[in-house]
Amino acid sequence: MSEAKAGAPGEVTAGVLIIGNEILSGRTKDINLPYLGDRLHALGVVLAEARVIPDVEEVIVKAVQEFSRRFTYVFTTGGIGPTHDDITADCVAKAFGVPLIENPEARAILEAHYEPGMLNAARLRMARTPEGAALISNPVSAAPGFRMGNVHVMAGVPKIMQAMFDGIADSLVGGAPVLSRTVISNLPEGAIAEGLGQVQARYPALQIGSYPSFRAGNFGTSLVLRGSDAAELDRAAQEVFEMVKALGGDPKLEITDPSAPAS
Amino acid sequence: MSEAKAGAPGEVTAGVLIIGNEILSGRTKDINLPYLGDRLHALGVVLAEARVIPDVEEVIVKAVQEFSRRFTYVFTTGGIGPTHDDITADCVAKAFGVPLIENPEARAILEAHYEPGMLNAARLRMARTPEGAALISNPVSAAPGFRMGNVHVMAGVPKIMQAMFDGIADSLVGGAPVLSRTVISNLPEGAIAEGLGQVQARYPALQIGSYPSFRAGNFGTSLVLRGSDAAELDRAAQEVFEMVKALGGDPKLEITDPSAPAS
Repeated sequence: MSEAKAGAPGEVTAGVLIIGNEILSGRTKDINLPYLGDRLHALGVVLAEARVIPDVEEVIVKAVQEFSRRFTYVFTTGGIGPTHDDITADCVAKAFGVPLIENPEARAILEAHYEPGMLNAARLRMARTPEGAALISNPVSAAPGFRMGNVHVMAGVPKIMQAMFDGIADSLVGGAPVLSRTVISNLPEGAIAEGLGQVQARYPALQIGSYPSFRAGNFGTSLVLRGSDAAELDRAAQEVFEMVKALGGDPKLEITDPSAPAS
Repeated sequence: MSEAKAGAPGEVTAGVLIIGNEILSGRTKDINLPYLGDRLHALGVVLAEARVIPDVEEVIVKAVQEFSRRFTYVFTTGGIGPTHDDITADCVAKAFGVPLIENPEARAILEAHYEPGMLNAARLRMARTPEGAALISNPVSAAPGFRMGNVHVMAGVPKIMQAMFDGIADSLVGGAPVLSRTVISNLPEGAIAEGLGQVQARYPALQIGSYPSFRAGNFGTSLVLRGSDAAELDRAAQEVFEMVKALGGDPKLEITDPSAPAS
């Protein structure tokens, strides 16, 4: 754990591991990543990397270890159900070098949830956690997730994942909120790239990104400025706005802070 | 390059790198990954891992090197436009230890595309490739992608990425097509997990996954069997079908080969 965490000084970071062959095969469209991106952003946590990985023990164990070391928080989705291909708990135990146990608290939750006789061996798999893990509550279907160190293990079904995340969100300590301003430009990227680079050079503390879109045969560009100092952001956004206007464009400026009303 | 490629013997694998802060911040929803998952699957290429990474040189260079070593094919999306935050070409050159050059062929394409006087310094950035790269054609907006070794560098805008992929798909050599059968079960995972594990144990060459869904307050499960031997798949799928029926369920069997009509 001697490696420094990723990110700027004082920045709180997260890594997300989406576990499951079905996402990689294209069969299931992931919607957990954009959800977590939005929620973490609003909490002042910078989502620094996400991986979609298969149900393969070696790959999961290595990714959990690497992410746990690199990021403040790690979130996994998928692989904690009752079937043979659900191996996330096993892999997290291996990653932390602790035994996988039947968690008494998790077992009690399952016993209270299922009708008598329905808690079979397969369902009892869902009571297994690494030794020392704290449970994450599942208000949708009972079987809990868990937290081991900085790794939060959640279900893959979006409705359950979201309920689990809601339950732990208060325990996450974010950094300074990342504020943002967006200038929508009707000019193509190539026309404004030089001016935009000059604004970036004048405001090295801000992160300025250019995101092209292509609709109805026309290129447009969203110019997004991010940082934690609102006054500095406002000044830089105004410069970008004026730059687009001077080049003959018709810019629109939006305040896109996570706490601001949706634009 | 001495490390063995991932995957079973004879399996052709791919890794996808989605490059861009805007995906991680939740601002832009990625739709390139499911597209590539579908297309690669149909070509007999197993998508083995995907990463969403930020516009950070060190992270991109390392990921390109690791993926190039581990997988048969690598595909990147994003970061090849004209603005200061477009650094993919620089990073791929670093990953391969070659200089980044102005590619004469790419420059000629840009010169033919832009009106006189419009090919400014920023747009000329899009003519830069690692030395030795082969261009990937862009029928939408001219500025090409490129292939360096087994790494295919494509745009992030989905319409352009898809057109680029269409242009290179014929050059990809897949393995045996991955066939699949899906048994839709109206029973929850926990009821069928034991029987499903037994079928998996009898058919070790197949990959059997269980994907729960939660709709209108009810759990259902898609049981997906994958492999390259159609007869073996049919036998195993029939066993899963009968198993669900014997447990009181009302299963539906679907042939979900990539070449089969959409189900």
